[in-house]
Amino acid sequence: MDRRSPLLITGVRTLDVRFPTSRSLDGSDAMNPDPDYSAPYVILTTNDQQLTGHGFAFTIGPGTEVVVAAIEALAPHVVGGDALTWFADMGTFARRLLGISQFRWLGPEKGVMHMAIGAVLNAVWDLFAKTRGIPVWQLLAEMSPQELVALVDFRYIVDAVSPSAALEMLESEVGKRKDRVAELKRVGLPAYTTSAGWLGYDDEKVVRRTREAMADGYTHIKLKVGRDLEEDIRRCRLVRDEIGPERSLMVDANQVWSVPDAIEWMSHLAQFRPVWIEEPTSPDDILGHAAIAKAVAPIRVASGEHIQNRVMFKQFLAAGAISFCQIDACRVASINEVVAILLLAKRYGVPVCPHAGGVGLCELVVHLAAFDAIAVGGEQPDRVVEFVDHLHEHFVEPSVVQQARYQLPMRPGYAEIKAESLERYYFPNGPVWRDVADARG
Amino acid sequence: MDRRSPLLITGVRTLDVRFPTSRSLDGSDAMNPDPDYSAPYVILTTNDQQLTGHGFAFTIGPGTEVVVAAIEALAPHVVGGDALTWFADMGTFARRLLGISQFRWLGPEKGVMHMAIGAVLNAVWDLFAKTRGIPVWQLLAEMSPQELVALVDFRYIVDAVSPSAALEMLESEVGKRKDRVAELKRVGLPAYTTSAGWLGYDDEKVVRRTREAMADGYTHIKLKVGRDLEEDIRRCRLVRDEIGPERSLMVDANQVWSVPDAIEWMSHLAQFRPVWIEEPTSPDDILGHAAIAKAVAPIRVASGEHIQNRVMFKQFLAAGAISFCQIDACRVASINEVVAILLLAKRYGVPVCPHAGGVGLCELVVHLAAFDAIAVGGEQPDRVVEFVDHLHEHFVEPSVVQQARYQLPMRPGYAEIKAESLERYYFPNGPVWRDVADARG
Repeated sequence: MDRRSPLLITGVRTLDVRFPTSRSLDGSDAMNPDPDYSAPYVILTTNDQQLTGHGFAFTIGPGTEVVVAAIEALAPHVVGGDALTWFADMGTFARRLLGISQFRWLGPEKGVMHMAIGAVLNAVWDLFAKTRGIPVWQLLAEMSPQELVALVDFRYIVDAVSPSAALEMLESEVGKRKDRVAELKRVGLPAYTTSAGWLGYDDEKVVRRTREAMADGYTHIKLKVGRDLEEDIRRCRLVRDEIGPERSLMVDANQVWSVPDAIEWMSHLAQFRPVWIEEPTSPDDILGHAAIAKAVAPIRVASGEHIQNRVMFKQFLAAGAISFCQIDACRVASINEVVAILLLAKRYGVPVCPHAGGVGLCELVVHLAAFDAIAVGGEQPDRVVEFVDHLHEHFVEPSVVQQARYQLPMRPGYAEIKAESLERYYFPNGPVWRDVADARG
Repeated sequence: MDRRSPLLITGVRTLDVRFPTSRSLDGSDAMNPDPDYSAPYVILTTNDQQLTGHGFAFTIGPGTEVVVAAIEALAPHVVGGDALTWFADMGTFARRLLGISQFRWLGPEKGVMHMAIGAVLNAVWDLFAKTRGIPVWQLLAEMSPQELVALVDFRYIVDAVSPSAALEMLESEVGKRKDRVAELKRVGLPAYTTSAGWLGYDDEKVVRRTREAMADGYTHIKLKVGRDLEEDIRRCRLVRDEIGPERSLMVDANQVWSVPDAIEWMSHLAQFRPVWIEEPTSPDDILGHAAIAKAVAPIRVASGEHIQNRVMFKQFLAAGAISFCQIDACRVASINEVVAILLLAKRYGVPVCPHAGGVGLCELVVHLAAFDAIAVGGEQPDRVVEFVDHLHEHFVEPSVVQQARYQLPMRPGYAEIKAESLERYYFPNGPVWRDVADARG
């Protein structure tokens, strides 16, 4: 799509959007018993009334307003800018936002400010893809290796991947992109499900959900663990008995253990042959994960949804601390940092299995996993993308998973919540939350 | 002081307090060219009108309002509580605040939310010491080893320091506490100065400030580096020529380098025999710091002001990545987490040299360094505490450094900004900021 210049950002609209998921215990795990899946949401308006950029982070209820406040702090650095000049050099634009020294002090590159920058950059990428009239995965898949390398801030990762090494890795995949796109359009991306094994579910529901998942074609089932060992053993046995010896079981402790506890606990679950133990301990503990990985082999260690940035991923990968790289589309600084992490994972030969679920993560990560499969990691038998089947109805283009495979999104842009859902779930004054308040009052 | 029970928290007052330091280039470094030293500030009011708890974090201008928003999000978890029950078990109270799952999701234990929790806990510790009528350092120095161990969340550090190992370390120092207190009251704590070497200063000012520092008795001088190699060489030579071969020079790069750049750059500064290179690269890069430490020896590596929590300190120490542990009183979760880090530093035999400067950090860290000297690290010839001589006049009890030694604070509590300074520097509507706006408008 040709555009007149400039494309001015005329406003930054923020919203605190929350879904009352805690009432059904969907999403309950050992660390997070009662999440209300939420989105600090940002809409960039432009001088073209047809074009808005939508972006968000993922949060779980109270505190969403803090990320919204951080997005508002960023607004003066975005309003009035010409988005077309940003699109011409997204690497420089992202580095500029990340480099504002007073905000950097609040991290650097972690926590609330980093999530807010991620949300704003997600909106800019959405706008970028919309101006081109294509989905984000395609926008990335059509970029040259040089353009992709220019997206990345190499300063703190150059000791693992240099720009020239990155260029070489990307160039080796260019010739295979076209066939891979065709293949992905035909068969989609392998998904796994977490819908069977939330900690709040009773045994009957776990069994029912597991059977449903198998009927839907899933070969990989993930179970939350870590609250009670006897219960975990019983639930793992239930699921292993249901799925048989061939399908894959994964377990996820959501950071509840110390390093020695993780090793001890997993010795009791090893009999159920889980493929991975996810988040066994603090997501900051690189050396701890490395110790766990060594102790629990052949069970492998997975982490990423709380790994704060590319500097941490670099070390987790270099130390052999994770064997599955679970990037999150909203924890890190949007696509620029995701590309850095995909390159690091490729460098260390680790498959990228994005974290999803929550609200909107499925809609976002399908773009990232598709791009990885097309242009970076390529064919990777161990790549499975998390899928959780809720809240998709709120998206303009909901995730579609058929026979346990994500279908490629085709709408221009990244991911966008429907206007009517934003209106209904706006916190605290949207009608859904007024109803909740009335029911409590 | 005896108290009737309960001591109820009746309110949480937040303030965004900023000092326009960017106009004088005090505090300028390679990463932070124009900081306005700021404090997201919290006052806990109680049902005893004589008793309020003051706490704050340290920020550098815009974004302070985001930390204030985070403190406000915490307020409902504090208001209405009985502080006396918290004081009886500060470990449980801190873990409760840190464990609120929806806020934890925004970290965990890092960035804006962690700083906000630190500010609130600083206020609770201030209140605690005031109810006892003693300064915080004394409150800690009078706790039994068991009480100190109970302050700490060991879950993610137990692989380095167990509760029983911590108890043993603390018990071995108990008998020496009394003499150390007497000695500290007599001679104070060794300080070093950063006031000579801000990056925004010209050569003449650096020389003048260095001479003033020597006249004031300083034997340790720190210089900011990392913007321009030739300039750094010239400034290091200037200062080394001024201070002679016996005094200590430290250099601080404020995270501007990659790992290979740090090693290369320091090879040019090695001729000036700096004691340490501070923050050579990303504060998240444990393995990078370890590589730098190996390459630049005998120059040692220092870091801490941006190290986000005890889990990271554990690894920096275990990996030999830092030889000086620069705890920050506001980056981590107040005294509870500081005690954890002091224990880790002791375990690995690394001296703790707190980060200070900014606004209020000197007033806070003197308590922490004194406690370390009395009850944890003990006699430690390499312990020097940063001192920067500005903004002290805004404190009810300003830091006092005489002959380059911090004097022990004697007022009950932790640190508190004067009411008239809060009133004048309140952003954006305090009179000082109205004047700035008028001058700009």
